[in-house]
Amino acid sequence: MPEKITLYTAKVCPYAHRVELALEEVGAPYEPYQIDLQNKPEWYAPQINPASKVPAVAYGGPPTSPDKPSPESTKIAESLVLLEFVADLYPNSHLLPKDPVLRAKARFFIDAVGTKLNPKFFALVMRGEPGAGEGLLQGIEEIQKLLPEEGKGKYAVGDVYTIADAAITPFLARMEVAIKNDLGAFEPGEGTKVYEKLQGDPKYARFRKYLDDVKARPSFQKTFDEGYLVEAYRKRYEPARAQKKND
Amino acid sequence: MPEKITLYTAKVCPYAHRVELALEEVGAPYEPYQIDLQNKPEWYAPQINPASKVPAVAYGGPPTSPDKPSPESTKIAESLVLLEFVADLYPNSHLLPKDPVLRAKARFFIDAVGTKLNPKFFALVMRGEPGAGEGLLQGIEEIQKLLPEEGKGKYAVGDVYTIADAAITPFLARMEVAIKNDLGAFEPGEGTKVYEKLQGDPKYARFRKYLDDVKARPSFQKTFDEGYLVEAYRKRYEPARAQKKND
Ligand SMILES: [Ca+2]
Repeated sequence: MPEKITLYTAKVCPYAHRVELALEEVGAPYEPYQIDLQNKPEWYAPQINPASKVPAVAYGGPPTSPDKPSPESTKIAESLVLLEFVADLYPNSHLLPKDPVLRAKARFFIDAVGTKLNPKFFALVMRGEPGAGEGLLQGIEEIQKLLPEEGKGKYAVGDVYTIADAAITPFLARMEVAIKNDLGAFEPGEGTKVYEKLQGDPKYARFRKYLDDVKARPSFQKTFDEGYLVEAYRKRYEPARAQKKND
Repeated sequence: MPEKITLYTAKVCPYAHRVELALEEVGAPYEPYQIDLQNKPEWYAPQINPASKVPAVAYGGPPTSPDKPSPESTKIAESLVLLEFVADLYPNSHLLPKDPVLRAKARFFIDAVGTKLNPKFFALVMRGEPGAGEGLLQGIEEIQKLLPEEGKGKYAVGDVYTIADAAITPFLARMEVAIKNDLGAFEPGEGTKVYEKLQGDPKYARFRKYLDDVKARPSFQKTFDEGYLVEAYRKRYEPARAQKKND
């Protein structure tokens, strides 16, 4: 029986969202605690995560409130470490299949998310680099190549939802919010253009089906607050655009 | 009983070396096949690894020679995916402890190797960036902080050698060869300077002991060819230095 899990998280953060999805998928009891990333509590870095980032987990130890963490609990950080940790705590769950080859496929998929998709997402949405819209679409094609053909498996490594899906979903959901609402560091209209290509071009059909499937999971429905994210992106990106216009 | 493992590797490559260490540690039967990275065989990318890198494993399938791979074997790439794969094939080995918290520690250590140590190694040895010697020493300090205190565990997460140790050892061994022999893209003398600090300064004592311990493993003795590496680095870095002198 796993011990008490406190998850330090933030609604805006895709890395933290990964861990929420994994915990929800296995039905783990856990206490989420929101960290305001713009104004982190003083105790957070020294007592929970020296890197001062979310996600982090306090595992075990005596009962305490999340904002008064016990030195006796184990502190664990890094989203991918935590995905594996949740899978290890629930070894009979679907989060990682038993077959070593399928486990390797899940981890290879996660590696591709980190090297081929996420850098493109950040380049477009957070930095608005020229050509980054095309780059993101290429990243999506790379990911799409790794998905099972339709009919051969809904999710990244087959018909069960694994840590591979939990690793990518938060980034895809945030990407969609950014381009659909044209909110990001990119030139106005660039997000919409990428969104329309992604929605309209038949070559992304497998990817679109995949995105629908992962978004349909109760784990996602419960942990994703689209309205909150739209507002957060609006606050983050609109002032810079207005500034630019007036320059 | 695991199936047949063919490992595509290259003596110079630290990533490939990780997987050799893991296979040796568990005593797995495997066939290593050297890939000449300067002149890769034509069949390698299409039939083994589309990314055209080592390491890669061909797992299972009918008996074939490594240079005539069967389409029926499973091809797996990426060194960290492969470390976990070997641990999954040998679940009762010491490569990963059973305790989820220790497993998380091993993976957190591996993450730190990838983010805090390796970039510094490449900056100094392969690119010779100004200040990179100091950077590497700082990276080593970061890693050292994660090691158990002396007497509380020889290796990264305790008294057993895990995938965490297999992940870092190849980089440390190559770093040592580069700085001890002053071979790298850095200014002549810079390697020696870093080496002397690392050898002489008491603040690196725990790290030095760790490096001795991982190098003493039979797995390392069997898989590391120091003479070969010195020659390879000499060929790679000396011409550029001679060129610079003549400029
Ligand atoms: Ca990381």
